[in-house]
Amino acid sequence: MKVKDIGEQGLLKKLQSFCPHDIIGDDGAVLSIDPKQQLVVTTDILVDGVHFSERTTPPDSVGWRAVAANLSDLAAMGATPLAITVGLALPGELSVIWVEQMYQGMSKLLAMHNTAIVGGDICRSEVTTVSITAFGEVYPNHIIYRSTAQPGQVIVITGYHGMSRAGLELLINPHLRGNVEQEMQVRLIDAHQRPLPRLDVLPYLWEIMETHQVAGMDSSDGLANAIVQICTMSGVGAQIHLSRVPYISSLSQWVSPEQALDWVLYGGEDFELLLCLPEEVGMKLVKTLGEEARIIGKIVEQKSVILIDENQQQQELSLSQGFQHFS
Amino acid sequence: MKVKDIGEQGLLKKLQSFCPHDIIGDDGAVLSIDPKQQLVVTTDILVDGVHFSERTTPPDSVGWRAVAANLSDLAAMGATPLAITVGLALPGELSVIWVEQMYQGMSKLLAMHNTAIVGGDICRSEVTTVSITAFGEVYPNHIIYRSTAQPGQVIVITGYHGMSRAGLELLINPHLRGNVEQEMQVRLIDAHQRPLPRLDVLPYLWEIMETHQVAGMDSSDGLANAIVQICTMSGVGAQIHLSRVPYISSLSQWVSPEQALDWVLYGGEDFELLLCLPEEVGMKLVKTLGEEARIIGKIVEQKSVILIDENQQQQELSLSQGFQHFS
Repeated sequence: MKVKDIGEQGLLKKLQSFCPHDIIGDDGAVLSIDPKQQLVVTTDILVDGVHFSERTTPPDSVGWRAVAANLSDLAAMGATPLAITVGLALPGELSVIWVEQMYQGMSKLLAMHNTAIVGGDICRSEVTTVSITAFGEVYPNHIIYRSTAQPGQVIVITGYHGMSRAGLELLINPHLRGNVEQEMQVRLIDAHQRPLPRLDVLPYLWEIMETHQVAGMDSSDGLANAIVQICTMSGVGAQIHLSRVPYISSLSQWVSPEQALDWVLYGGEDFELLLCLPEEVGMKLVKTLGEEARIIGKIVEQKSVILIDENQQQQELSLSQGFQHFS
Repeated sequence: MKVKDIGEQGLLKKLQSFCPHDIIGDDGAVLSIDPKQQLVVTTDILVDGVHFSERTTPPDSVGWRAVAANLSDLAAMGATPLAITVGLALPGELSVIWVEQMYQGMSKLLAMHNTAIVGGDICRSEVTTVSITAFGEVYPNHIIYRSTAQPGQVIVITGYHGMSRAGLELLINPHLRGNVEQEMQVRLIDAHQRPLPRLDVLPYLWEIMETHQVAGMDSSDGLANAIVQICTMSGVGAQIHLSRVPYISSLSQWVSPEQALDWVLYGGEDFELLLCLPEEVGMKLVKTLGEEARIIGKIVEQKSVILIDENQQQQELSLSQGFQHFS
């Protein structure tokens, strides 16, 4: 059955099972915010052929990734997710099952964080477009900003980068899978199709913020982009030691070291956190989070981002290399 | 200059002048909600060729109408608007001026209601798509629902219906304008391009709700649709006297009575309110709001919507005639 066969109202009715209180289709939803906390809102718009495609992203993964991007934005601000709204623009020829499976993907990740779909809108379009707005709540002293990084702070990243990009490569070029162990194949493809926003890190950060300043953002547009954004917004620079940036060692079995580094810095969509905080607490945080979290460098006064390789060669990271959707 | 020439980041920078506190481009925005009120959220997705077109909707009107639809949803719930987020999917070939003028249209209507754009996302797409999520606040006892209409209540509508549809007709068929006085032309085209959400009615409703129940919704998907929706959600029926439904008398100079009635019932996008409340307070409300507001019928137990014409002929309003985006 196609979307045009059951119409907008029919589809809304089908999707209502994913929403509590029959709120889809009503004018809006009513939510209660903890009076001591502030509301955080964030929005993302995803388009077929740009952010997902039939070859690399099954419908449940489209939904999962759309939710992951928004929950990661909340995590980046220090906020606990409360709810999302979903706007869909869909071709009449699209199958209803595709839409239901996309909602299943959204619901699975939302359920892990006790977050509900509280409203939506559906209309037709030639291009499948998914627009999600997420709401979270945060205590005023727990809000994480991009603009408050300070010279002397260390830079912590919470996990591996480049994995989502490597998984995408295996999806686009299945013949490459022969070079990769089965278990790692699954892990890389999962990193691309079902990334996990780092909301698990927040309780540690909230505790740190009781006594220390933390700046940060997520690395959804790439690690390099996150470093440049934080430095630009904070009016500071950074020194990054490339040898300290963790990456999956098995990458070296099937791509060149240059390619691997490119994916780690510019691949994007790993949804990890990049955090700037005092060295002592940074070291403690890394110890708490375990192997994958690392201190990769420090914030400096000089307003440029310097990459330092294992031979102590220095190279400036150019702003224009940051991730750009239009090209 | 085209969107592809300045890129996503360049466009975000240009649009930042429309947003307070440089929040566009950050992960999200932080808002404070009055601790005694609840948060209301609503979302709409608008697509080029479906909800607007070059011929009938200049860019500032696209922005104005997108905001009007969302503020009208808040008005329908009894909520005061606080802020919106804007997700844009844009073709690279689109001119930057188009996007700026659309933002100007949004800003003009938002300014009338002290409402800010607090965040957004931009990506490329083959089809111009505008997704807006609006946030409002409302005291718990002032929330208006669709599902609480009760037999015995009268049905009030707040203004003329069919005007937006008539304006659209003049835009699609300019040769028809010869039949319409200049002043009325402007009024009808304005009704289509710059509709006003009825937030002005809320203070009267809040006062009424201190002592009486009010059910209601907006008529954005057409007057007939609103009546049917309220009856369905409330498990009741309605009797509507067509002779009491106000419509612009000059319509009869250039369209048949049947056409005029069709536009009034099914035209949509007038963004008026349809309210169900006790007769006595309904009469008082109509007196307060003036000429254009009318009691057009009443809620009954029998679960069907009956239209009664001037000869007392009765006709059932079929549910399937309600507005459908897919066809």
